[in-house]
Amino acid sequence: MFGNMLENVRKKRPLIHNITNYVTVNDCANIVLACGGSPIMADDEKEAAEITALCAGLNINIGTLNSRTVKAMLIAGKRANELDRPTVLDPVGAGASKLRTETALRLIEEVRFTVIRGNVSEIKTLALGGGSTKGVDADVADGITEENLDHMVGFVKAFAKKTGAVIAVTGKIDVVADSQKAYCIRNGHPMMSAVTGTGCQLSAMTAAFISANPEHPLTAAAAAVSAMGYAGETAYGRLTETDGNASYRNYIIDAVCNLTPQMLERGAKYEVR
Amino acid sequence: MFGNMLENVRKKRPLIHNITNYVTVNDCANIVLACGGSPIMADDEKEAAEITALCAGLNINIGTLNSRTVKAMLIAGKRANELDRPTVLDPVGAGASKLRTETALRLIEEVRFTVIRGNVSEIKTLALGGGSTKGVDADVADGITEENLDHMVGFVKAFAKKTGAVIAVTGKIDVVADSQKAYCIRNGHPMMSAVTGTGCQLSAMTAAFISANPEHPLTAAAAAVSAMGYAGETAYGRLTETDGNASYRNYIIDAVCNLTPQMLERGAKYEVR
Amino acid sequence: MFGNMLENVRKKRPLIHNITNYVTVNDCANIVLACGGSPIMADDEKEAAEITALCAGLNINIGTLNSRTVKAMLIAGKRANELDRPTVLDPVGAGASKLRTETALRLIEEVRFTVIRGNVSEIKTLALGGGSTKGVDADVADGITEENLDHMVGFVKAFAKKTGAVIAVTGKIDVVADSQKAYCIRNGHPMMSAVTGTGCQLSAMTAAFISANPEHPLTAAAAAVSAMGYAGETAYGRLTETDGNASYRNYIIDAVCNLTPQMLERGAKYEVR
Repeated sequence: MFGNMLENVRKKRPLIHNITNYVTVNDCANIVLACGGSPIMADDEKEAAEITALCAGLNINIGTLNSRTVKAMLIAGKRANELDRPTVLDPVGAGASKLRTETALRLIEEVRFTVIRGNVSEIKTLALGGGSTKGVDADVADGITEENLDHMVGFVKAFAKKTGAVIAVTGKIDVVADSQKAYCIRNGHPMMSAVTGTGCQLSAMTAAFISANPEHPLTAAAAAVSAMGYAGETAYGRLTETDGNASYRNYIIDAVCNLTPQMLERGAKYEVR
Repeated sequence: MFGNMLENVRKKRPLIHNITNYVTVNDCANIVLACGGSPIMADDEKEAAEITALCAGLNINIGTLNSRTVKAMLIAGKRANELDRPTVLDPVGAGASKLRTETALRLIEEVRFTVIRGNVSEIKTLALGGGSTKGVDADVADGITEENLDHMVGFVKAFAKKTGAVIAVTGKIDVVADSQKAYCIRNGHPMMSAVTGTGCQLSAMTAAFISANPEHPLTAAAAAVSAMGYAGETAYGRLTETDGNASYRNYIIDAVCNLTPQMLERGAKYEVR
Repeated sequence: MFGNMLENVRKKRPLIHNITNYVTVNDCANIVLACGGSPIMADDEKEAAEITALCAGLNINIGTLNSRTVKAMLIAGKRANELDRPTVLDPVGAGASKLRTETALRLIEEVRFTVIRGNVSEIKTLALGGGSTKGVDADVADGITEENLDHMVGFVKAFAKKTGAVIAVTGKIDVVADSQKAYCIRNGHPMMSAVTGTGCQLSAMTAAFISANPEHPLTAAAAAVSAMGYAGETAYGRLTETDGNASYRNYIIDAVCNLTPQMLERGAKYEVR
């Protein structure tokens, strides 16, 4: 099933409009290419709607947002909705500042997102309209563990129901759910948190997956999450003694590039709750 | 001949002012260093003219443009013209949005460019004042092939004549021409299109080449195009089974870094039409 | 001593607010992670103060500055001062344009910096209120050599006294000094100048070091400078014949990632003057 999702990205080569932060944008572009999509970045309000219309899907990431780019995000999001294009929101750092929290909440209110992907702190902030965030990384206290997994699945499904979006919460265990069904995914490696922007990359890749599989947003999003985690595992296996987080960054994207539908099908570790 | 062009970059270490997109800017800086130049990025209108005056050449790239940076592009371009500094325009995504098409056309009207480098879609858009672009990658239908090469050479020469610029159209076959003479270059590897920004990198490197060889813009631009393609070939040869587009990205820049004038002289594959 | 400084970064994992240029920002984020810190980038005036308050320290870098981000720099710097958070200024390209020189001087006037780190040209520009800069790289004539080292130590101590900041001047020999004591550091490798942003990366890492060691800004800054240089040596030793500046860039960050307090203690090459 996940394999098919990847296969469709490779076949359809969806063009993805990204309005994303300048920290990790290059990696986002390269991972979209690695999975089989084609990226375009455009954050000016004068061209946002037009670029969205040209694309198969839209990825909005609020890291390094500013008043100029927030305008473009709203315009692009609304245009994508009009044209029924799949959309992803990555609420980077929601909870870390009023601007980020309010922008994320406003985006959710004014745009219908197909997928919202973040860490536990960010998603909790949006779901509860508050909460604490230690910068752009999840609070340790906020992690998903085997102990709180059932509770978190319920929480995620409820937020999915409220927003109408597939919610992808990533961490040690990832939960990807709509209101009915949750994939609990156990791919990935702890060292991924030592690479800046693995979350941003995943969001961009998710946009490619859901745009190539518009009928299956939940499965496509879960496939993207699993693919990213599996790439993190493969890449970790490749590390030599002198490699560190910079080489790991490259190896993760390389692993996505070399990932086949069969490998993903075999390597995906998940259960449905 | 191409070897001499590279040799001059290494000797003169030209400082290049880049007003470029934030997606591929780091790779642009590193490839300018790799070929022997020195990069400086500055996109504020308050310093654009001054930075241009400090530099040997200017590279303008309209990817992720916005109203603020467009102002800086115009100021820098005009200042470069006043001071007779070589200039490159990379019209990224011209044809993909009105803003990009109009900005590119306005830049060509108000600034005299030494070289304009783009893919077929972008150059066609500018030449014909329209055309379609699939994001930032060339339309397949727009490729240069052995079949349409003579036609394309004529088209490129005509646009070179109209603009007074050397035109570099890159794709499977690259055509670099002024109104009289066209280099048809067959270096490169298809996998280069799986790396974001190889075109942007080439434009930045072209600025270094023409700035170190101001008397020979056509040969210098052709040498840069050939050098980039040759680096793509060398880098491809270095790929292991687990390497993908992220490692390839690094290997291409590495290959430029290790490229000698002799290697370029030997490795360049071109004919003149 | 330097080992302890690194050890504290690894233990405390300080969150660092970076307002920095878009050229090297990804490398800055990854090197902060590599040394044990956690980066957040936020450059909008609406969130600057809030993000600073959330963080253990602040790194301001004026590469690719613009009027919007300069506002955020001033707000963040003042907030950091109010909260007694360690602050770093990297005056990239001071001397290259009026905007950069004036912004750097204004920042120094309105914000109390814990550390100011730059190359000789940049620091001279600030100290003398002028001077010449060849882009973002140090003028050759401005280098620190064995011959002028004593003179430079005096100059740096005087500027440290004037500003109240630890001054870190990096080049062939690095001088890190307060008004009383100077570390003359001989780590590093000439090839580091072929990688864009090794200076920016060092500034970001310095912010992590001084934030984890707020009682020892001089030693912490000197430790960061030595760590960066030592990583440059280790990374250089790892280069193969086909590697160039792009791989070197990755290897430097990797080396920081694998650096232990013991290795730094052993590898640091410095004298106190």
